[in-house]
Amino acid sequence: MDPASWLLLCRSVRFGDTDAAGVMHFHQLLRWCHEAYEESLERFGIAAAEVFPAAATGSGTPVPAVALPIVHCQADFRSPLVCGDPLAIQLDPRRLDPGSFEVSYRFHCGEREAARGLTRHLAIEAASRRRCPLPEAINRWLEASAVGRGIQPL
Amino acid sequence: MDPASWLLLCRSVRFGDTDAAGVMHFHQLLRWCHEAYEESLERFGIAAAEVFPAAATGSGTPVPAVALPIVHCQADFRSPLVCGDPLAIQLDPRRLDPGSFEVSYRFHCGEREAARGLTRHLAIEAASRRRCPLPEAINRWLEASAVGRGIQPL
Amino acid sequence: MDPASWLLLCRSVRFGDTDAAGVMHFHQLLRWCHEAYEESLERFGIAAAEVFPAAATGSGTPVPAVALPIVHCQADFRSPLVCGDPLAIQLDPRRLDPGSFEVSYRFHCGEREAARGLTRHLAIEAASRRRCPLPEAINRWLEASAVGRGIQPL
Amino acid sequence: MDPASWLLLCRSVRFGDTDAAGVMHFHQLLRWCHEAYEESLERFGIAAAEVFPAAATGSGTPVPAVALPIVHCQADFRSPLVCGDPLAIQLDPRRLDPGSFEVSYRFHCGEREAARGLTRHLAIEAASRRRCPLPEAINRWLEASAVGRGIQPL
Repeated sequence: MDPASWLLLCRSVRFGDTDAAGVMHFHQLLRWCHEAYEESLERFGIAAAEVFPAAATGSGTPVPAVALPIVHCQADFRSPLVCGDPLAIQLDPRRLDPGSFEVSYRFHCGEREAARGLTRHLAIEAASRRRCPLPEAINRWLEASAVGRGIQPL
Repeated sequence: MDPASWLLLCRSVRFGDTDAAGVMHFHQLLRWCHEAYEESLERFGIAAAEVFPAAATGSGTPVPAVALPIVHCQADFRSPLVCGDPLAIQLDPRRLDPGSFEVSYRFHCGEREAARGLTRHLAIEAASRRRCPLPEAINRWLEASAVGRGIQPL
Repeated sequence: MDPASWLLLCRSVRFGDTDAAGVMHFHQLLRWCHEAYEESLERFGIAAAEVFPAAATGSGTPVPAVALPIVHCQADFRSPLVCGDPLAIQLDPRRLDPGSFEVSYRFHCGEREAARGLTRHLAIEAASRRRCPLPEAINRWLEASAVGRGIQPL
Repeated sequence: MDPASWLLLCRSVRFGDTDAAGVMHFHQLLRWCHEAYEESLERFGIAAAEVFPAAATGSGTPVPAVALPIVHCQADFRSPLVCGDPLAIQLDPRRLDPGSFEVSYRFHCGEREAARGLTRHLAIEAASRRRCPLPEAINRWLEASAVGRGIQPL
């Protein structure tokens, strides 16, 4: 499978993403980052239910057992985006240590770089909130993404 | 306690609530409605933890035992709102039957009516998702609100 | 062009769309409705810049000249949605009179109907905020959509 | 005027701010930062219309003439927040050079530090999008805030 298929995504700027200055409102970019991370896992073949909690099951054990909360995020805004702008989003996920990883995101509108984002995630046991190793599915995605690092199209 | 203290709330339109037309983006109003409902319960003396679920406890029993999902919502927009506009929000909660209630919301900016909203809530057991009676705390809030109905300031 | 290509859209429930009850938070549905309306116009061949305002141009004349604010919206929630649920969204746009239209939206997750939404839009001159006829592009989309009404796949 | 009155603000975590992990969803924090910045200006006595654009006026000149887009933001998450948690938000605005400033934000829930945020803003002429000096009102707010730096209550 070509890493481009799960590390290069598309979306359009929507009207509700803009503010009265006429351009994308800054914090929407962080929402786009997380949605791109979710879509990347989905395209790679990892079901949302393996990584993200859903409705309480009442079973006594949180599902999934490991949560991946964001401990840091940041974004840089290079040029304004208006409603309808088509975006190419390039993801670059990297393992930081056995229990954490980060994803950087580059947003292009045509040739123009519009923004960069970054999210850093920590693995914790959902029940105890103690640090733990990354789930196996995330490790597979990180490793396959690292293989593709030499051939980034942007 | 004067019903005005928990049924008449204030907020300002924020920049991120607007879109590139320069005015409040429509779906933000539904967010304001729910936040007003939460603030009303809080001012009446009902802790969020009595009504809204929080992090999974791993106890095997969802807390709280009864959820109040919204089954219907609607809004009417009368006049545009811009960043900084101060809003008065009048809530009118009504029990529909032993297991459901609705809240209507009127938003004024000075003398001008800006919008109306409505949310309809159904009580269900969180574990089984079957219909059940409203929680006692919600009943107290609905009854105290009904008492105040004759003296609405708007 | 087959109306299914611009009136039947897809999206997935994302983690940020859920709340601590574990399911989609109600007001996100109205955001999805507007984004589906924008995507439908885009697929039909209408550029966002023809319909939605962008950054202030300083030209003295708002662009586009006609705005289409939402004057009413509503939604009904039939069954809960969790993170990762794939959605099919069926749009049904209808002209109400020469200066307004509404779009109804049905959200299915597989065979199961999850929710319905509706947005009602009024044409106004952006400069004066007075009512006016619908823009020509919107009329073309409404007419082509009406033609397809007999063959809805859902 | 005591700087605490415009640099120390309060808000509560609302249900729509949480996700299915049961805790505040990360990007909502950036929304809270911007809303705190707006509320701080408001309490200091600067009208929203002096700083933030509103509906297009059709006058040919954007109002206000200077925009303050965010060029960088970041956040660190220290401990989870659940629905209903009361927050104290301490703002620390600093001028970086004659045409830019940043605001750092510390969020406490009781004694516990929950998160930190930062937004960096650049002054540009709204019409040309060229860099320019900060507006006078922002300079007054930055200077008055610097005076209060010795007496931060947190």
